[in-house]
Amino acid sequence: MSKPLRVPLEGLEPGIRELTGPVARYVGRVHRLGPGADLLLFDPALGVEADARLLDGGQGVLRCSVGPVRASHYKAYPVGLILGLAKGDKPDTTLRDATALGVAWVVFAETARGVVRVSSERAPARLVRWQRIAAEAARQSGRGDVPRIEGPMGIAEALARGHDSLRIRLDPAGPPLLERLERWHVGESLELLVGPEGGLSPEENQAADARGFLPASLGPTILRSELASVAALGTLVAFALARRIG
Amino acid sequence: MSKPLRVPLEGLEPGIRELTGPVARYVGRVHRLGPGADLLLFDPALGVEADARLLDGGQGVLRCSVGPVRASHYKAYPVGLILGLAKGDKPDTTLRDATALGVAWVVFAETARGVVRVSSERAPARLVRWQRIAAEAARQSGRGDVPRIEGPMGIAEALARGHDSLRIRLDPAGPPLLERLERWHVGESLELLVGPEGGLSPEENQAADARGFLPASLGPTILRSELASVAALGTLVAFALARRIG
Repeated sequence: MSKPLRVPLEGLEPGIRELTGPVARYVGRVHRLGPGADLLLFDPALGVEADARLLDGGQGVLRCSVGPVRASHYKAYPVGLILGLAKGDKPDTTLRDATALGVAWVVFAETARGVVRVSSERAPARLVRWQRIAAEAARQSGRGDVPRIEGPMGIAEALARGHDSLRIRLDPAGPPLLERLERWHVGESLELLVGPEGGLSPEENQAADARGFLPASLGPTILRSELASVAALGTLVAFALARRIG
Repeated sequence: MSKPLRVPLEGLEPGIRELTGPVARYVGRVHRLGPGADLLLFDPALGVEADARLLDGGQGVLRCSVGPVRASHYKAYPVGLILGLAKGDKPDTTLRDATALGVAWVVFAETARGVVRVSSERAPARLVRWQRIAAEAARQSGRGDVPRIEGPMGIAEALARGHDSLRIRLDPAGPPLLERLERWHVGESLELLVGPEGGLSPEENQAADARGFLPASLGPTILRSELASVAALGTLVAFALARRIG
C-alpha cells in the first residue's frame, strides 16, 4: 500500500543483516513494523540503497533479509547554498538543516563581517567535519545521498565559481523571493547566497551583483542568518516540488 | 533616500531621548548613523512607533529627538502556527523564529507524542514566559507588534478553536505545499499545524482532518519539528508577500 519505510544502514550488503540500537527502535517501536514488513535500506555516504524484508520483530535486535544493492534513486534538488561563515556552531546547524531539506551543495565562505578565518592548514579538517555532519543529517532525514561541500574559501572565490545557475541573494529591499523564482526553469540550478550574522558588506553585495546574484526579499523583518537560510531554502524546495524542477 | 532605520526602544515618549547599550551600538557602529539621521523608533510590546532624528553620533550614548507616538503601521501576516509542545527549549526557538518571520498567532498544544504536560497551575507562568520571548524576538527582528500566544492547551481544544481560515498540516504523503497555497486568498488567514518530535499520532491526524486541516508536503525527507515549522512558515510568508495577502 504505502511506500516501504526508509531505514539508514552503514555498510549495506545483500544477505541477512541485523538492525540494532536507534535504528531497531525506529523500525520496531516508532513504526511498529513486524515480520514480513518491507524496508528500503539506504547508506547516504555511499549513495546506495537496497530492498529488504523484516524477518522478526519486537524489542532489541531485528533481523532482515537484504536484496541486491543498487545506486540510490534519491535526487537532491538542484539548489545550492553559499553561506557566510560565522563563529560557533551556527553554520553546522544550517548545514544540517540544508541537508535535510535536500540541497545539492553547500559552499562555506569567509566574509568581512563573519570574522571567522580558517587557516589553510586547518581547512581540510574543517571540510571533513562538515562532510561528517552532512552524512549524519542525511541519515536522520532519510535522504539517500550527501550534499557536496566546498570551502572554506574567500567570498570572492565563492562568487566566482562557475555554476551556470539562477543566483539569488536575500535583501529586504529586493522584490519578493517567489517572484524571482518565476524565472527558475526545469533543468536549471539555483544558488542562494546568505551572509553571516550582520550581513554581507556593501562591497560584497556589489561583488555578488556583478556575478549575477539577484536581490530577493523574504519580508521587512531582520532575520538571523540561520533563520534566513532555512526560511529561504524551504521556499525554494516548496517551489521545486510544486513545479517539478529537478 | 532609503527608509529610516527601525530601532527598538521601550517606553516610547516624545521629546529628547537617549539610546544606550546594544541599541546605541546598532545605530552608531553597525549602521554608522550620525547627527541628522532619521530613525523609526518602535516598541512592539505596546504596538507603537514614532519618527525620530539623531542629534549626536559617535560612541556610547546617543541622543535623539522623538516626535509624536502613534500606533504601529506594522501588519503581521494573517498566518498562525499550532505547534506540538516538546521538551527542552525547542518550542521557544520555534516561537522566536515564527515571530521574526511575522506570524500573527502561535498556539502551543499538548500532543500524544510530545510527552510534555503543563499543569493548570503552571500554565499562566508558561504563557507569560512565551510572551516575553516573543516580545524580545519582535524587538530583535524589527517587527512592530507581538504575535498573540495561546496555550498550553490540549490538541483537541487547539484544533477546535473557531478560526475561519485555510488550515494545513505537513504530511510527506500530501500534495506539494505550494499547490495547496493556491487556495489561499487575500483577506483569508492560514493556520499551520506542526506536530512535536515524532509527529502527531494517527488519531490526532484524523482529528485534524475532521477539523478541515489539509495535508501538504515539503518533500520526501523527514524534518525535525522546528525545521519543518520554519521551512513551511518561510514558504507561507514568501507566498503572502508575493501575492500581497494580508
